Amino acid sequence: MTGTLVGVGLGPGDAELVTVKAARRIETAKVIAYPSPEGGESFAREIAKPYIPKDAIEIPISVPMKEARFPAQEIYRSAASEIAKYLDQGCDVIVLCQGDPFFYGSFMYLFAELKGAYSVEIIPGVSSLMGCAAAAKQPLCARLEALSVLPAPMHENELRCRIEGVNKGLGGIVIIKIGRHVKKVKRVLHSLRLAEKAVFIAHASLPQERVMKLMEVDDETDSPYFSTILVPGRDPYGSR
Amino acid sequence: MTGTLVGVGLGPGDAELVTVKAARRIETAKVIAYPSPEGGESFAREIAKPYIPKDAIEIPISVPMKEARFPAQEIYRSAASEIAKYLDQGCDVIVLCQGDPFFYGSFMYLFAELKGAYSVEIIPGVSSLMGCAAAAKQPLCARLEALSVLPAPMHENELRCRIEGVNKGLGGIVIIKIGRHVKKVKRVLHSLRLAEKAVFIAHASLPQERVMKLMEVDDETDSPYFSTILVPGRDPYGSR
Repeated sequence: MTGTLVGVGLGPGDAELVTVKAARRIETAKVIAYPSPEGGESFAREIAKPYIPKDAIEIPISVPMKEARFPAQEIYRSAASEIAKYLDQGCDVIVLCQGDPFFYGSFMYLFAELKGAYSVEIIPGVSSLMGCAAAAKQPLCARLEALSVLPAPMHENELRCRIEGVNKGLGGIVIIKIGRHVKKVKRVLHSLRLAEKAVFIAHASLPQERVMKLMEVDDETDSPYFSTILVPGRDPYGSR
Repeated sequence: MTGTLVGVGLGPGDAELVTVKAARRIETAKVIAYPSPEGGESFAREIAKPYIPKDAIEIPISVPMKEARFPAQEIYRSAASEIAKYLDQGCDVIVLCQGDPFFYGSFMYLFAELKGAYSVEIIPGVSSLMGCAAAAKQPLCARLEALSVLPAPMHENELRCRIEGVNKGLGGIVIIKIGRHVKKVKRVLHSLRLAEKAVFIAHASLPQERVMKLMEVDDETDSPYFSTILVPGRDPYGSR
């Protein structure tokens, strides 16, 4: 019997926002893998830290964190073959994923490599969407509204078209991976008269959490890569 | 000092997908409120059951579950004033929310009623989006892809336009609240040549979980209100 590849969602950052199921699976893990930026701390490992057994074998996957260099397919291929060695021995491998494994997660590269040959289990996690809405105390969407998630590195014209399209109807918009794109996103939202009601969130659920109006964010300072901008819908039911 | 209104996300259904934080808050709760459909069991209470203390005061909010009759504003207003009585006594009130409180949750009606006068805390939960992707073993979105969430009760033309708009670019689509709209959604996806790759999920994370190709779902049988259809993106990075 080969082992199971387990993709474990850890939520937005607060170790208490890990699910009971994820905590139990990590606490009993023999082999744990996680993405680890070159020369930095692994955010996924930081979140899961209180649950990681001292004697677990750890497989840090050293990945370059610059957008331009993603996906580093050869890195994930090599990590997958290291993970496969343990799976072949009948040992489950727990892969730590910040947020949710299938929501913009690098886990899907390992999944693509290994799903054909091994059984896979996914433990979903609290995504940054929900973490940011909670931090901002801002409902995302209600009833018949649509919700659109758009990555900020998208081309400016495409971003504008998509936001305009959503906004014609009812609907909330979440722009993720803000990083160095604050100025562009501000420009787009301003041109659509949506900048005033947009909210900026960084480090949701962590002690250094920041929530502010987008208009108050300094254009010239780079925001964290994982910061987010929420644009609420049109308040059709008096609930916001 | 007045108490705090705490909106607690419980995840898609499996009690183990409750977060550690939510479990702790429920276990120490004195007053717990939850939506309870007229003449039925409260799904939120079912999920939270293992964590509810025996001596907690419970406030079931009896709501009609038919789409057409939402939002039953007067029901939430009356529930809010009952909750306010406890808050005024300095007692926190925990409101149980299936999924996430701010993602299509009825909690936002209570939030709208009470946020002006009382402090509010939101504990985000695993949403049905992530629960369904995990059940289907289907990544939702990666890198620069967009993700669109669309409620099935939306008008057929609007649904078609929005799906077409998303699909022109890269991006995943999640259609929620399927209920009696299977036939309509099939028709729309078929006309856009997307029906073949669509996946249907009901009761994600629960023992009665069902995952199947949309084309295999019987048109004539009503699906559960909380069932979901995923349409994966265009597989631009070989990760699906």
